[in-house]
Amino acid sequence: MRIALDAMGGDFAPDNEVQGAVLAAKTLGIQSNLEVIFVGREKDILSALSKVDASGLNYSIFHTDEVVGMGDEPATVIKKKRNSSLFKGIELHADGKADAFVSAGNTGAVMTTGTLVLGRIKGVTRPTIGSFFPTVHKRPALLVDAGANIDCKPRHLYEFAIMGSIYYSKIIGVEHPKVGLLNIGEERTKGTEVILQTYELLEQSPLNFTGNVEGRDILFGEADVFVCDGFTGNIILKFAESIIGVLKAKVKQHADKGFLEKLAVGAMAPTLRKILKEFDYQEYGGVPLLGVNGVAIIGHGKSSPKAIENMILRAVDVASKNVNGLIASTLATLTIPAENT
Amino acid sequence: MRIALDAMGGDFAPDNEVQGAVLAAKTLGIQSNLEVIFVGREKDILSALSKVDASGLNYSIFHTDEVVGMGDEPATVIKKKRNSSLFKGIELHADGKADAFVSAGNTGAVMTTGTLVLGRIKGVTRPTIGSFFPTVHKRPALLVDAGANIDCKPRHLYEFAIMGSIYYSKIIGVEHPKVGLLNIGEERTKGTEVILQTYELLEQSPLNFTGNVEGRDILFGEADVFVCDGFTGNIILKFAESIIGVLKAKVKQHADKGFLEKLAVGAMAPTLRKILKEFDYQEYGGVPLLGVNGVAIIGHGKSSPKAIENMILRAVDVASKNVNGLIASTLATLTIPAENT
Repeated sequence: MRIALDAMGGDFAPDNEVQGAVLAAKTLGIQSNLEVIFVGREKDILSALSKVDASGLNYSIFHTDEVVGMGDEPATVIKKKRNSSLFKGIELHADGKADAFVSAGNTGAVMTTGTLVLGRIKGVTRPTIGSFFPTVHKRPALLVDAGANIDCKPRHLYEFAIMGSIYYSKIIGVEHPKVGLLNIGEERTKGTEVILQTYELLEQSPLNFTGNVEGRDILFGEADVFVCDGFTGNIILKFAESIIGVLKAKVKQHADKGFLEKLAVGAMAPTLRKILKEFDYQEYGGVPLLGVNGVAIIGHGKSSPKAIENMILRAVDVASKNVNGLIASTLATLTIPAENT
Repeated sequence: MRIALDAMGGDFAPDNEVQGAVLAAKTLGIQSNLEVIFVGREKDILSALSKVDASGLNYSIFHTDEVVGMGDEPATVIKKKRNSSLFKGIELHADGKADAFVSAGNTGAVMTTGTLVLGRIKGVTRPTIGSFFPTVHKRPALLVDAGANIDCKPRHLYEFAIMGSIYYSKIIGVEHPKVGLLNIGEERTKGTEVILQTYELLEQSPLNFTGNVEGRDILFGEADVFVCDGFTGNIILKFAESIIGVLKAKVKQHADKGFLEKLAVGAMAPTLRKILKEFDYQEYGGVPLLGVNGVAIIGHGKSSPKAIENMILRAVDVASKNVNGLIASTLATLTIPAENT
């Protein structure tokens, strides 16, 4: 299992990338045949490797000079930065020299470059990015789209539902995941014209469609897969990611009120930390780029070594399961009314 | 100050409505001249009054039989339920027999009926409902629109920004509140066509426009007023309202793990409760219906007596300030390009 890892992607690259790879190798063990291909500036990668014990890691380095920044326009990578770690890593995967690609870099750039270089799965109009949310249950909820496609037609939302459902089923191991359409009310008469039409498509689909779901249903895990456009999805995702930080700020404000409050907060901190750990998005192993001919896992720019590890483990998991084949065969059996294409 | 209170509105009506009115009278004191007009079934209201000490409350009862349910279609109230407490309460306000209207009933019905019966402020295309969010700062953030208008043009979002800014300024007491446009990135090139055009309108406006803001900026209070369409706003609002419940469920799950965990949770509970209290949406006094010729405050169906009290106090506050006059005079001075109307 060869993973092309964008060693220059995250905000703490290549240190966190290298440490994450070492952790992944340790977790999977020698028998796993994991091989990490660090793609990026050799000198920087070697320097990061010199700081850790990489004896358990089977790796190689694919040197390339250029780096895609977080501020780079996604569409320009393929024109102007073909020597970047991001482009080269995806190319290695497209050429069959790697089984998956992992990056904590510019999400939009991975999305655009991945779609163009890997190509779309037959039947997919728009690749999508999903994102896992913690819930009160043991299993997370998957929100698709989490920011890749901001203007969506019913056909797109429908495809997100199919891809999300297959991904959830294969990766979380739930046979018929509940698919909900994110809306402003449960009644089927609610929502925009696009939402109303999507409801009809989903109702006629082979999915386990539970109807409309609301914002409050996400963390309560009332569905497994929440379908929405990338504008709504991205705003919810970023809102959700802010909660832990806000809570920490509130706890600190309380502690600063006085000596007794400081004592009380100090006493509760370890328990609170344990409880909030489950809300840590780092645990969820990045988000998949769904709908491309390949496996691309994208992580947050601030990904910790642990987060990078989880992204690599996720990539191995996805690559070893036939997610893309199932997406293609499912979409091939479906007929979508012309007005929605 | 005469407040027409929809006594049949909330899930716990009329008990919570009556208790809330008593609390409001206590808080404002005799000198306030508060008069609550309970609109609804006299028998039920008297029964609720008999359970409390209403000696400090100056009230009257406006009897009407019909009740608007949470499931009633908003548009049908004006045709079929003109004898409902919701319709009659708004009518009392429109006829000048009350200075404001307060309801914990069907939000859509208050919105639709309020708009039709009270009429729109000159210059307002679409009335809107805002919602306050707690932030890490002392002052809350106002999200407009929180669910009233799901399909919005730039002109509508622009008006929400104007109305939200004036409301925030008058009610929270901040002279030039920061107005942000909710988007999927900070760069001005981000977002849908509607968002891009709205950005231009806001940039040229007299508002204190801080540019695009993201989902994570809401609870961190990076702006005072967050502008979005009602589809996005409603989903975020309901997502946010679920956080406390989810946290409670997580804390309980932790306590159920064992004896030591139960002890730890028991010890931290009082402090955690104090900290989370600031996130309690009940404290925020309902949401205003902005853009109508009148003062209508709408609360959650599950509003507690405390929440009803805060709604009444908010209605008194809004009615005593010239919010609507300022909205009209501000909109009168602005020219919006024709393609956005």
